[in-house]
Amino acid sequence: MATAPSIGTQLVMRLETPNTAGSFGTLASAIGDAGGMVGAVDTRTVGKTTIVRDVTVTVNSDAIANAVRQAIEKIDGVRVLSVSDSTFLAHLGGKIRTGITRPVKTRQDLSTVYTPGVARVSSAIANDPAKAYALTIKRNTVCVLSDGTAVLGLGDIGPYGAAPVMEGKCMLFKQFADIDAFPICLDTKNVDEIVETARRIAPIFGGINLEDISAPRCFEVERRLVEELDIPVMHDDQHGTAVVILAALMNAAAVVNKRMEDLTIVLTGSGAAGTATIKMLLAAGVRDVIAVDRGGALNRDEHYDNSHWTWLAEHTNRQNRRGSLKDVLVGADVFIGVSAPGILQPEWIGGMARDPIVFAMANPTPEVMPDQAAGYAAVIATGRSDFPNQVNNLLAFPGIFRGALDVRARKITEGMKLAAARAIAGIVGDERSAEYIIPSVFDTRVVDAVAQAVTQAAIDDGVARRELLMPDDEAAAEPVRS
Amino acid sequence: MATAPSIGTQLVMRLETPNTAGSFGTLASAIGDAGGMVGAVDTRTVGKTTIVRDVTVTVNSDAIANAVRQAIEKIDGVRVLSVSDSTFLAHLGGKIRTGITRPVKTRQDLSTVYTPGVARVSSAIANDPAKAYALTIKRNTVCVLSDGTAVLGLGDIGPYGAAPVMEGKCMLFKQFADIDAFPICLDTKNVDEIVETARRIAPIFGGINLEDISAPRCFEVERRLVEELDIPVMHDDQHGTAVVILAALMNAAAVVNKRMEDLTIVLTGSGAAGTATIKMLLAAGVRDVIAVDRGGALNRDEHYDNSHWTWLAEHTNRQNRRGSLKDVLVGADVFIGVSAPGILQPEWIGGMARDPIVFAMANPTPEVMPDQAAGYAAVIATGRSDFPNQVNNLLAFPGIFRGALDVRARKITEGMKLAAARAIAGIVGDERSAEYIIPSVFDTRVVDAVAQAVTQAAIDDGVARRELLMPDDEAAAEPVRS
Repeated sequence: MATAPSIGTQLVMRLETPNTAGSFGTLASAIGDAGGMVGAVDTRTVGKTTIVRDVTVTVNSDAIANAVRQAIEKIDGVRVLSVSDSTFLAHLGGKIRTGITRPVKTRQDLSTVYTPGVARVSSAIANDPAKAYALTIKRNTVCVLSDGTAVLGLGDIGPYGAAPVMEGKCMLFKQFADIDAFPICLDTKNVDEIVETARRIAPIFGGINLEDISAPRCFEVERRLVEELDIPVMHDDQHGTAVVILAALMNAAAVVNKRMEDLTIVLTGSGAAGTATIKMLLAAGVRDVIAVDRGGALNRDEHYDNSHWTWLAEHTNRQNRRGSLKDVLVGADVFIGVSAPGILQPEWIGGMARDPIVFAMANPTPEVMPDQAAGYAAVIATGRSDFPNQVNNLLAFPGIFRGALDVRARKITEGMKLAAARAIAGIVGDERSAEYIIPSVFDTRVVDAVAQAVTQAAIDDGVARRELLMPDDEAAAEPVRS
Repeated sequence: MATAPSIGTQLVMRLETPNTAGSFGTLASAIGDAGGMVGAVDTRTVGKTTIVRDVTVTVNSDAIANAVRQAIEKIDGVRVLSVSDSTFLAHLGGKIRTGITRPVKTRQDLSTVYTPGVARVSSAIANDPAKAYALTIKRNTVCVLSDGTAVLGLGDIGPYGAAPVMEGKCMLFKQFADIDAFPICLDTKNVDEIVETARRIAPIFGGINLEDISAPRCFEVERRLVEELDIPVMHDDQHGTAVVILAALMNAAAVVNKRMEDLTIVLTGSGAAGTATIKMLLAAGVRDVIAVDRGGALNRDEHYDNSHWTWLAEHTNRQNRRGSLKDVLVGADVFIGVSAPGILQPEWIGGMARDPIVFAMANPTPEVMPDQAAGYAAVIATGRSDFPNQVNNLLAFPGIFRGALDVRARKITEGMKLAAARAIAGIVGDERSAEYIIPSVFDTRVVDAVAQAVTQAAIDDGVARRELLMPDDEAAAEPVRS
């Protein structure tokens, strides 16, 4: 069975070899025999008896990387001086920088951006804090905030380990939506402390993207911050995922000619993404969702210690069905998995209603591999980039925050998320098919479409601080005189 | 008496005038008569009866700005559509941005900087958090942290008002030392909460620059953070100022041929900068400092409620002198003021020892104006840019943090600050004179000299995490393979 999609890793190996004819040939053969592919070769220094070269070697796994190294070390007279790895090199020194909007090279510059000129600007904001949106970075700056407890598939790896992911997220904000994002990795896992800290550092930010905080803590953290702060706060693992699943499902349902309100959906995994997806589906008009966790379908005959399971049991499972995943899947229209690898037997799909829709989102290994589900399901989506229909929250969060910042929104409403989902689905539109229910993450139309839809929804929902966008003439229209 | 140094403010006025011959001439005359200077004129729209123009007008004060506006509004048929201000325009949208180290435009980019590639990098750091210095932004990123309680001369203006100053500081870090700094403006003034918050957000940062936190709270905040964190924490209002005053004093003493250890120094103002300056002077070998506050010289016969005054009374004033500023100034070698405008009568300087040194640092209006002190003092310095010998902490903080980051220092020691002061004084060196005791803030030699001195001092003091710098070959030498 296939597992994680493999990406080639490039190693840059600094190697010392004897300065004799044929020695590089021996080296190259050994690398090839061990499964590596030799790429660029740069000579660093040439001595009387030895040559030092940087040799780029592509390998497909850590095992091959080790085999290549061992093969090289066995060759007489050859020494491995160092090994760098292209992925690690890409992260060296971190992945974001600060930039400044103008140079500070003259006395006049200094007087303008710092003392004494800045005092007038600070006073103007102190007198009217709303001017922070015009005169500070608040209008375009998002905090990517994590406590490092649920990082990718790695779990609780702490704030230091989380940093490369949060920096990566900041890169995506910049590249996809020109949002200035800054990573904050918290040295606490306590819910009260996370909430307090976020509240205290909030003034400089126009929004907070919560990231990789484990369930069920993430629900309370988000709920309290949304309540207490007057800037948008969104836990992307929940809502980014939910928005994109909904978008994909809208098109999948259209492909099989079913209406959203008629669907029976079985969803496995009631963590952050699963719970948010269920709420989003209900908000979008779906009437019958059955949540399945390790103990089977959540229902109203059982008592749950976990308060969000109780909530789910009360608000889903219209017919109060009981039983295992296999049991409740019988007759269902849609399976959505945000749970664990391989838990869906392909043949169970055969017992679903006509034209089954299967979203198997566990990452990197789905609930069922698409090639195995193919004989049973009409539409299949996963979280993987190596199959059609990748459900990736990169389709949602840049546009959602872009739209929210553009209108200086106070929060992100259900209406804004629904609008985002519709906008993503709309990009596919009439070109939809079983293998095209969701646009590519590199489709440049997505961010603008989502941002515009979110902007309008924010205005409609009354959470926009300003309704007019004045890109051309902003300077004149802003309150830029104290 | 002169007050704040005046800088011309440029207003961009959008004006609608009748579309008739001579109407612009009338306008220009009115502006000139009111004290404004007409600069660039851009025509925006030309209608049948009216013309809209953006007219740039330079004014030297807010009073003149208002007079110009009133004069314009009095002209028949002319309307002021909007007024922008060049200083405010320079702050529009904030002054810093995030940049990314590489584009994220292809699937391969995404796999490298984000999932799945980033997982290996995160794992490597989770296994060995020291790798955060190699593989995240920590190595070059400083937090500029304020609670907005002592912003410039404005006092407690809160986190929103503080933001433009903190952004300005971040610009200076970038421009002068290529440090990536990010502003955090805290929505709390509670010492415990400030300390907790800084500790919780610290993992992503390689250092924390505390800024504009009021005394005496700033002392405890800094002391506790230095104790609890393993990255450099420095309250710049204290130590940046102290370092530069010491540097200036070293050269001033040399100009008048006195030794530091023989000086009697009277210092007014026992806030953040004053207290830090006294400690720095004592560390540099000065033996006789008298601190003067509103009640006169701090001495051991009185009881103080404020614990840092008690500390000062116990550690300064060798002869336990009592009395007013005027009293204790008699026979002193140096006056250092970090207190309030105009408190030093010029003629009191006449009662000091031979060749008095006067540092009048209150900003923007000094304890004594240099032109009035000139008849009495041998060397005069201020915090102002419009007189010789400007004592500006911009000479210190960029190089201090550059040096500290370069060796991944655990803290900033007394030795590092002394080294910084000596390096700044050394730039002036033998060219010193009564009007040149301190380099210009735009002297490009300063940051490197300070950084190198601080680097060496960090190594000597045992707080450096790494001693070798490997700019050329860093990639190979770093632990870039998990």
